Amino acid sequence: MTLKTGAGARVPPFLVMDVISAANALAASPAAANRRVIRMEVGQPGQGAPEGVRHAVAAAMAGTDPLGYTEALGLPGLRRRIAAHYADWYGLDLPAARVAVTAGASGGFPLAFLAAFEPGDTIALAAPCYPPYLNIMTALGLRPLLLPATEETGFQPTVAMIAALDPQPDGLLIASPANPTGAMLHPDELAALARHCHANGIRLISDEIYHGLTYGKPAATAAAFSPSAIVINSFSKYFSMTGWRVGWMVLPEELVRPVECLAQNMFICAPHVAQRAAEAAFDCHAELSARRDAYARSRALLLDALPRAGMTKLSPADGAFYIYADIAATGQDSAAFCRAMLHDLHIAATPGHDFDTARGGDFVRFSYCADEADIAEAARRLTESPPGR
Amino acid sequence: MTLKTGAGARVPPFLVMDVISAANALAASPAAANRRVIRMEVGQPGQGAPEGVRHAVAAAMAGTDPLGYTEALGLPGLRRRIAAHYADWYGLDLPAARVAVTAGASGGFPLAFLAAFEPGDTIALAAPCYPPYLNIMTALGLRPLLLPATEETGFQPTVAMIAALDPQPDGLLIASPANPTGAMLHPDELAALARHCHANGIRLISDEIYHGLTYGKPAATAAAFSPSAIVINSFSKYFSMTGWRVGWMVLPEELVRPVECLAQNMFICAPHVAQRAAEAAFDCHAELSARRDAYARSRALLLDALPRAGMTKLSPADGAFYIYADIAATGQDSAAFCRAMLHDLHIAATPGHDFDTARGGDFVRFSYCADEADIAEAARRLTESPPGR
Repeated sequence: MTLKTGAGARVPPFLVMDVISAANALAASPAAANRRVIRMEVGQPGQGAPEGVRHAVAAAMAGTDPLGYTEALGLPGLRRRIAAHYADWYGLDLPAARVAVTAGASGGFPLAFLAAFEPGDTIALAAPCYPPYLNIMTALGLRPLLLPATEETGFQPTVAMIAALDPQPDGLLIASPANPTGAMLHPDELAALARHCHANGIRLISDEIYHGLTYGKPAATAAAFSPSAIVINSFSKYFSMTGWRVGWMVLPEELVRPVECLAQNMFICAPHVAQRAAEAAFDCHAELSARRDAYARSRALLLDALPRAGMTKLSPADGAFYIYADIAATGQDSAAFCRAMLHDLHIAATPGHDFDTARGGDFVRFSYCADEADIAEAARRLTESPPGR
Repeated sequence: MTLKTGAGARVPPFLVMDVISAANALAASPAAANRRVIRMEVGQPGQGAPEGVRHAVAAAMAGTDPLGYTEALGLPGLRRRIAAHYADWYGLDLPAARVAVTAGASGGFPLAFLAAFEPGDTIALAAPCYPPYLNIMTALGLRPLLLPATEETGFQPTVAMIAALDPQPDGLLIASPANPTGAMLHPDELAALARHCHANGIRLISDEIYHGLTYGKPAATAAAFSPSAIVINSFSKYFSMTGWRVGWMVLPEELVRPVECLAQNMFICAPHVAQRAAEAAFDCHAELSARRDAYARSRALLLDALPRAGMTKLSPADGAFYIYADIAATGQDSAAFCRAMLHDLHIAATPGHDFDTARGGDFVRFSYCADEADIAEAARRLTESPPGR
């Protein structure tokens, strides 16, 4: 007989996967020989882990440590280095005991959601957003409450938006810098949100995965403003270690032990070799900040080129490596716009539908973490032959 | 204000963690100088990944592959090697498209549970069992239905036990070889369970993580007997790669796409470097089967020594690297028994409470995957000074 499937079996795919497939097919076709396909649809750095990480891992392979299970919350040395990172970057005195090493930021979300919420609880977050937020919440029986964010609020939620909710949500999820907009909360706005949440019994979850990739605006951590906030971060973006699946959380004291028990059951531990790699990554700031400087140059090129290509309404792009462009004026849906841009200009970008089911048809996300020369070439093509005309 | 926490925050810890802490403290104390502490409480091989794996990873560190995200279901080459492994070990022609690479077996369970079940669904499984089964189910809103398994049924569930349930469960989770008993289902019993489940709309989940570590009895995979069964496996045990966090599932065709979408959201992918390591592990059977032979010798020593130490009622120990000993005749609770054995004999083992809250006080799990010389020394100490007297 045909067996039933669960609610989890109805999680939607990402449309970007179709773009990736189409871009792969085009890149493998003769058409790409004269005009290479430029990949601006993906959210991972074009380069892998820094050299120091690769050397440290190679050395570990020659050593005698069997690299077995680690403690559920991670290698003590790595937890201490992460805590020290909060002193270095934020001037924050954070006990290493509040740091939990996770299997990427993705490994942090289920732990945070399960430790903090009950099925049926409501978690507010701004739209557009990173789509797995919604899908993980839904798979775990939580109810996302989308707050349509616009240019007027810098594509971020505000205290007024939260205070106006009736009933108040059980949680608030923020991301600064955000995917897909790159928009950041000013430290004062972040502090105000954190304090409002703490005072009103709303669990704040702050996704800080793009910290380190900011271009002038100050970045603050929610951990500085609230003892009850959960911070999620990762070695995937600034540290350029996407495939290693290692990230971390900063936990409120009362959630450390519950998260430890959950992690023992659900993950056992983050990959040991990736934890060793992450320790080494903290010694690679010279290489990593040079990469950030390259992103900054690519960003500047695109912020100049996109308006000249007709895309005059752009998201703040304060951080991360994304620009979210409003293409409503073309009269095209973003999926069609992206298909045509891939066909005509050999530039792959992501239609907004993945990030915002309601308004995504009017937006396209350009990622600029690919090779700098590729982004320069994309800027040239876009200005020479504006898409959507 | 103090914020509420979720149901996940009430997941219980493992008692074995207290044993590990006590054994660590004893091993670091002067008392260990004359009589080393023998670790029979842990479920991971004493040695790490085989040499071929370490060389392959070192080579990857010197290469140019950035080791970024892989496809959500894993590197195509690894999926093909896993499929080929089913031909090699089971004579089964398995399409690589039905293989999903996961972040360890632990990464497979939430995907399986979410894809196959709805919150509130009931999943039957034998007790004693691996405790995260229950804790993951509970965290995801599923209801475990424990079937007390005894010596009479070989510590495994039977078709009669399942057929007698009213109402029938939504799922059945089996493990062969099982943790903590080492008990195996005969291929005919496995086939009968698989067919009963398929015919009655019960989703079978077969944990085959200890395959490869069997000592004479034939092992079969549930994938051979049911198109609707989900198989979970890992590189942690036979392949000796616990800390790498890489495993796999064999999926029913109709669950491949749902699991792919869930994995995109919840894990993105298994660690890339661990996937490369896993590919190399298939070339290391000589080293790995030598390790299994060492476990077989350790097992034989213990099966001789434990009865002479007064533990005459032992689980079948057909596979894995565990023996589950009935210590009820001592009149002691297993937690006290284990504390005394650690203190008196410097042998750490796990009280049964973690595996069976109802009857675990009468049982102790001995793991024999530590160094062979350590197990021989443990056998000597146990027979010279039987514990619990």
